[in-house]
Amino acid sequence: MPGRCRQNPAIPDRATAMTRAWTLRFPRTGLLATLLALPLALANAADPDSPKPRTTQEVLDASQPADWRRLDPANTLYLDLAAGRVVIELAPAFAPEHVANIRTLAKDGFWDGTSIYRSHDNFVVQFGDADADDPAKAKSTGHAKTKLPAEFERSARGLPFHALPDRDGWAPEAGFAEGFPAARESATGQAWMAHCYGALGAGRNLEADSSIGAELYVVTGQSPRQLDRNITVVGRVVQGMELLSAIPRGPAPMGFYADPALRTPIVAVRLASEVPADERARIEVLRTDTPTFDALVESRRNRRDDFYKRPAGHIDLCNIAIPVREIAGDAR
Amino acid sequence: MPGRCRQNPAIPDRATAMTRAWTLRFPRTGLLATLLALPLALANAADPDSPKPRTTQEVLDASQPADWRRLDPANTLYLDLAAGRVVIELAPAFAPEHVANIRTLAKDGFWDGTSIYRSHDNFVVQFGDADADDPAKAKSTGHAKTKLPAEFERSARGLPFHALPDRDGWAPEAGFAEGFPAARESATGQAWMAHCYGALGAGRNLEADSSIGAELYVVTGQSPRQLDRNITVVGRVVQGMELLSAIPRGPAPMGFYADPALRTPIVAVRLASEVPADERARIEVLRTDTPTFDALVESRRNRRDDFYKRPAGHIDLCNIAIPVREIAGDAR
Repeated sequence: MPGRCRQNPAIPDRATAMTRAWTLRFPRTGLLATLLALPLALANAADPDSPKPRTTQEVLDASQPADWRRLDPANTLYLDLAAGRVVIELAPAFAPEHVANIRTLAKDGFWDGTSIYRSHDNFVVQFGDADADDPAKAKSTGHAKTKLPAEFERSARGLPFHALPDRDGWAPEAGFAEGFPAARESATGQAWMAHCYGALGAGRNLEADSSIGAELYVVTGQSPRQLDRNITVVGRVVQGMELLSAIPRGPAPMGFYADPALRTPIVAVRLASEVPADERARIEVLRTDTPTFDALVESRRNRRDDFYKRPAGHIDLCNIAIPVREIAGDAR
Repeated sequence: MPGRCRQNPAIPDRATAMTRAWTLRFPRTGLLATLLALPLALANAADPDSPKPRTTQEVLDASQPADWRRLDPANTLYLDLAAGRVVIELAPAFAPEHVANIRTLAKDGFWDGTSIYRSHDNFVVQFGDADADDPAKAKSTGHAKTKLPAEFERSARGLPFHALPDRDGWAPEAGFAEGFPAARESATGQAWMAHCYGALGAGRNLEADSSIGAELYVVTGQSPRQLDRNITVVGRVVQGMELLSAIPRGPAPMGFYADPALRTPIVAVRLASEVPADERARIEVLRTDTPTFDALVESRRNRRDDFYKRPAGHIDLCNIAIPVREIAGDAR
């Protein structure tokens, strides 16, 4: 939480904070350890038989290896910038045609030497070929398909869906599917990925089927759920969001940069499966279909540390950050 | 919306985009003008007598001078950084004691030469005295009070409240009050400001009444509504969020900077009323209690431009950006 003083706000307030502490192996401060060990003042005293509510840290500390999963290298994209690496998980279960095309583009090195050419405050960064509109200068998309169907949604049939307990304003049902924040509608039998922080989408023109996955955007602001079912979401940033979210906003309308020198160069975008094993990110992601994940969600719905005087009893889909941690030892 | 190509996504997708275009007086591109003039494909043809739905731009273009308001200089704070000015509106209707103390601190020049010492990805930036915890180095808070009551909420009685049509997950009722995103609960008769993007809050320690308004934070990520009624919100950034949101995230846990050199220096924080009239921001803000504002909200609930294939029919409180524009002419 935002604390008054530097040393005091020691309890991580977002799973992302915890996540970064895990993945970057920051030392725990003594104060943090002390606070985490404090008795839970808000344990539900009314029912002594009910399980004691746990903090997020307690849930993670008690997690088992099977609660975590590794990313499939064939569905993992590394966006390498001078400042570091952004790790992206692709979602073939939701956008198979786009993901296949993105794999082709990555293998062709399409994004190498391109740029992040848009940073729109409280909305998105966008990257790819800044000259895509100019036939004289546009970069070839090589072996990639030049026409794809819109993949705004898919049949909910056969898609395991782990629903949240709280009502969602944007959809009849919200939760997680295949590890991604998603929504579902029984009336149409459809499911779709939600535009939460870190969502990776395929930019398009006015026509629904005008995206091919070459020009991509990542949500860096308040979840623009109005885009759900209006654009093809192809994946999600798993690690490295801070490299995208802190990019200076473009001064031109909608966050574009009129001056190409202001764009952020992209060193390379590669599939993890095309990268030598010892250069791959050594991370794993918390599964979203387990009792541990349910406990994590509950620990976010009702904060049980001493800072919170009034637990919310609610959480929105896009307020749930999916924990990531480094893989221990040498296993990859 | 995120467009595939640089030139094509020409319709501003967020009110913030429009806002920036207004306030910085960017030229409209020809394509933008063309697109805005396109017939509304989604006008509700079923009922020819119902008013034609309008786009956000059309609503703003039709707005009248009375739909806008100027900020009270006594409730306006300028946070001046080397990169530019952040304009903040204080909310004495919600946090009178904190706002009074903040006025005192600003008049004393308390924040001049301090820093933004925390940037926590997808959460907050925090500023004030980075040495506040160290009695040997802490800066004097001068004439300010050293103890204030918690001002997490206030009586809803006598507070005009403009409710949104959609249900809010975090509160029984959500809407706007005194120009701020807010929530209300009839069961307790209380109202409070909501932690939306740009909210300015008073950092505190574990005790509810441990904030005095010297250490402040601004929300830069997905709205952390779980903080509502857990911390005193004192105002909102009206202009200049991009100067705060793009600050590189602190590498230490929770976004702090272990290295003081990484902090962002604060040139000065002043009340507008203490600044010569010709140095004040020349802006006005859309009122939130008018039919024009209702029309704006509706234009965000259901996007009526050619990009959107399926208007959402919903909006969350924190997805509504309040438009700001430059004041025309010489009037201040």
